[in-house]
Amino acid sequence: MKLTHLDENGAAHMVNIGAKPVTQREAVAQSVLTMQPETLRMILDGTAPKGDVFACARIAGIMAAKRTAELIPMCHPIPIESVDIAIEAVSETQVRVVSTLRCSHKTGIEMEALTAASVAALTVYDMCKAVDRGMRIDETLLLHKTGGKSGDYHAEGAAAR
Amino acid sequence: MKLTHLDENGAAHMVNIGAKPVTQREAVAQSVLTMQPETLRMILDGTAPKGDVFACARIAGIMAAKRTAELIPMCHPIPIESVDIAIEAVSETQVRVVSTLRCSHKTGIEMEALTAASVAALTVYDMCKAVDRGMRIDETLLLHKTGGKSGDYHAEGAAAR
Amino acid sequence: MKLTHLDENGAAHMVNIGAKPVTQREAVAQSVLTMQPETLRMILDGTAPKGDVFACARIAGIMAAKRTAELIPMCHPIPIESVDIAIEAVSETQVRVVSTLRCSHKTGIEMEALTAASVAALTVYDMCKAVDRGMRIDETLLLHKTGGKSGDYHAEGAAAR
Amino acid sequence: MKLTHLDENGAAHMVNIGAKPVTQREAVAQSVLTMQPETLRMILDGTAPKGDVFACARIAGIMAAKRTAELIPMCHPIPIESVDIAIEAVSETQVRVVSTLRCSHKTGIEMEALTAASVAALTVYDMCKAVDRGMRIDETLLLHKTGGKSGDYHAEGAAAR
Amino acid sequence: MKLTHLDENGAAHMVNIGAKPVTQREAVAQSVLTMQPETLRMILDGTAPKGDVFACARIAGIMAAKRTAELIPMCHPIPIESVDIAIEAVSETQVRVVSTLRCSHKTGIEMEALTAASVAALTVYDMCKAVDRGMRIDETLLLHKTGGKSGDYHAEGAAAR
Amino acid sequence: MKLTHLDENGAAHMVNIGAKPVTQREAVAQSVLTMQPETLRMILDGTAPKGDVFACARIAGIMAAKRTAELIPMCHPIPIESVDIAIEAVSETQVRVVSTLRCSHKTGIEMEALTAASVAALTVYDMCKAVDRGMRIDETLLLHKTGGKSGDYHAEGAAAR
Repeated sequence: MKLTHLDENGAAHMVNIGAKPVTQREAVAQSVLTMQPETLRMILDGTAPKGDVFACARIAGIMAAKRTAELIPMCHPIPIESVDIAIEAVSETQVRVVSTLRCSHKTGIEMEALTAASVAALTVYDMCKAVDRGMRIDETLLLHKTGGKSGDYHAEGAAAR
Repeated sequence: MKLTHLDENGAAHMVNIGAKPVTQREAVAQSVLTMQPETLRMILDGTAPKGDVFACARIAGIMAAKRTAELIPMCHPIPIESVDIAIEAVSETQVRVVSTLRCSHKTGIEMEALTAASVAALTVYDMCKAVDRGMRIDETLLLHKTGGKSGDYHAEGAAAR
Repeated sequence: MKLTHLDENGAAHMVNIGAKPVTQREAVAQSVLTMQPETLRMILDGTAPKGDVFACARIAGIMAAKRTAELIPMCHPIPIESVDIAIEAVSETQVRVVSTLRCSHKTGIEMEALTAASVAALTVYDMCKAVDRGMRIDETLLLHKTGGKSGDYHAEGAAAR
Repeated sequence: MKLTHLDENGAAHMVNIGAKPVTQREAVAQSVLTMQPETLRMILDGTAPKGDVFACARIAGIMAAKRTAELIPMCHPIPIESVDIAIEAVSETQVRVVSTLRCSHKTGIEMEALTAASVAALTVYDMCKAVDRGMRIDETLLLHKTGGKSGDYHAEGAAAR
Repeated sequence: MKLTHLDENGAAHMVNIGAKPVTQREAVAQSVLTMQPETLRMILDGTAPKGDVFACARIAGIMAAKRTAELIPMCHPIPIESVDIAIEAVSETQVRVVSTLRCSHKTGIEMEALTAASVAALTVYDMCKAVDRGMRIDETLLLHKTGGKSGDYHAEGAAAR
Repeated sequence: MKLTHLDENGAAHMVNIGAKPVTQREAVAQSVLTMQPETLRMILDGTAPKGDVFACARIAGIMAAKRTAELIPMCHPIPIESVDIAIEAVSETQVRVVSTLRCSHKTGIEMEALTAASVAALTVYDMCKAVDRGMRIDETLLLHKTGGKSGDYHAEGAAAR
């Protein structure tokens, strides 16, 4: 087993996907933000109208997905076919971002999903940092992926979510 | 207290920093990756020459810092003056990314530091995902910041790191 | 009838084009600039050699077309196959920009055509604003489109142009 | 009087602003969209929840402002200090986008304001085009500007708005 | 014979590749840097650990390849399938960068290869300019290309390299 | 003497320019293209109207200068104040690109000048490659620089140009 992004000399390269077949791909990733309960109430309530904080984060995540290959050096450019970002409060102090991406291509779309979730979470941080600098982002991980030679993947315990 | 990125109608806007003085700013942020011990050994050992995985992640983090204002909708463009990304194994299964950024500007550089740490961590994920799809990124948070009207900030427990 | 860019909760998403067939697409869009007659003469005559104002606007439009998916949040990245930008004086005070784009893809290329025409027009504004700040851009609209499930479209009166 | 973006040979160049003083600048620009009354009702009413169409357009405009120098060839990069985008229905068939930008720099921020208004308007078009392909964008123009050697500018009739 | 990037009026346009078949393409390009022998020793030896100068240049070249269509006005966006950048000292004063790119598309990938080699070489310059401002880059050229209607191409003397 | 872009461990970082004074900077760089005499005639004559090949290359160079910090990993973002690109035939087979850039900043503008010249030259290659694939780019080097602590620099023999 080896890290395919490194050649025989250990030099980073963008691996050749030319011989791989085009298959339908899907990837679902998440990030979880933890904040003060007052911060979350402010987002959900009147003062900080929920609309625009979450709308802004969703849009930032969608736009970041399209720029994944510019950010992650060894990623291939991918013709993304859909992006959905769901953001919801999952407790009094936590917000969960889930991104779902699809494409038909020779390589997977996991990095796009992880980038979308991360940037959406960072955007929530940005919009609330003036009132809660101690917010943190955890559990950025791949929940599912389907398509491609390596087959399907489901994170342990992800079904329960 | 209110979310300054939203105006009186709850619409997102880029807040006016025109009247703020230019001050020297620093921000330090981190992300922590957890992976299989074999994955980390592969990064540190021969097969997966450490050089390029961490070099690639450091460079990706530095380059992402410069694009923060393109990714995070309400961020101001900032003339970044320095970026350092340190990446090291902190246990048999964990890698910690710490980013340190500086600028002289009317607004802070926290989002740049958080973006740099996040993208560096995502790059490690990308380069190792073929052997360990279950890697996860946690503890993306601001460790310190200095400069600006809101004063200094030190994450609780951050000194101990 | 509904706005497909919004899901059942009203949240913006990038719609799934995965099941749509690849078809040959074309879109033609325009923008019309109105300016002082002296400004237009300056562009067309000696002092403001026509070559570079219109050349610069054409090139800006072509390059902007390639960045449409970065600018318009819900647009899919598209493998553009051709871009033509025609710019000509249509009266003593008006310049018309017409962009023609083609691709073979699962979704249409109208936004690329509209973005190309708009940015070309903005570039003419930029290059002449020092002498005529009151220039304006009107009639930014889709003239024709062909290809795709929704079929052909021709703007009313567009044939007459 | 001459076009300052062209040198003595008519070649486009980015003019030298090195000797100009830094002054506080503001620019206000607009674009007006005309659409079918059903389309506008759909945006404002239930089916097409107003929140995200206008939120998405506002965010797209803010983000586009930050990329003006990448889109308009002869524009200087500018440290934008604030961006506000207001979008509102002004009749049964018209939506008006007004962008207000500020910076402290050696050159003005008009192109950023015009680009922000244009891209916000294009985003509304994109999100509604499936139901109304005949939408059009008019009256993209500079309403006001202040700061800089050339002094203040107010579009004729703009005060009445 | 004519320059296909110009239309019948001499205006630049992005040529229509819609009717061309998709074929497997490869392009190999190079750039050669000449520097002081002390500079090259510094890169290869201890003081200037070879790892990161060449790693940084390789990564910069790979990332630049993905942005070719943003930089070169008439280039089509291309779904790049692989990028390899090899950098090695070829004499006491010279470093050679060789880029190899592949795609399956309707147009060739030569510009991506040339851009990758050029930006990798510029990155070496950047990282060493503090000690050797007189470095220069020569012999930026296409070594080989295969695929496409125009057939294979091998630079004269390139076999000997 | 050491490579300032590498820290004490050889890791690449963006050096801290925070303590450096702002000074007026200028950098002049060049690239030289060699081509078949027929290719150059075609550019200069009727068939390949000179206007747009050189206009396109000039504009590409100006726009690339503004993106230098995105392309060259360790470059700081710089508020460019002017860009001039001159392109002229210097023999029957050679075209010389000279870029002149200025800024007032804490670090120099040499990389912007070199990037502008390189991308302008690559654009000429792109627009002529259909008729002359063997074109090459040489002598990409810094001609002059002024400003900054390291003082002025003039390439040997550059005065004679």
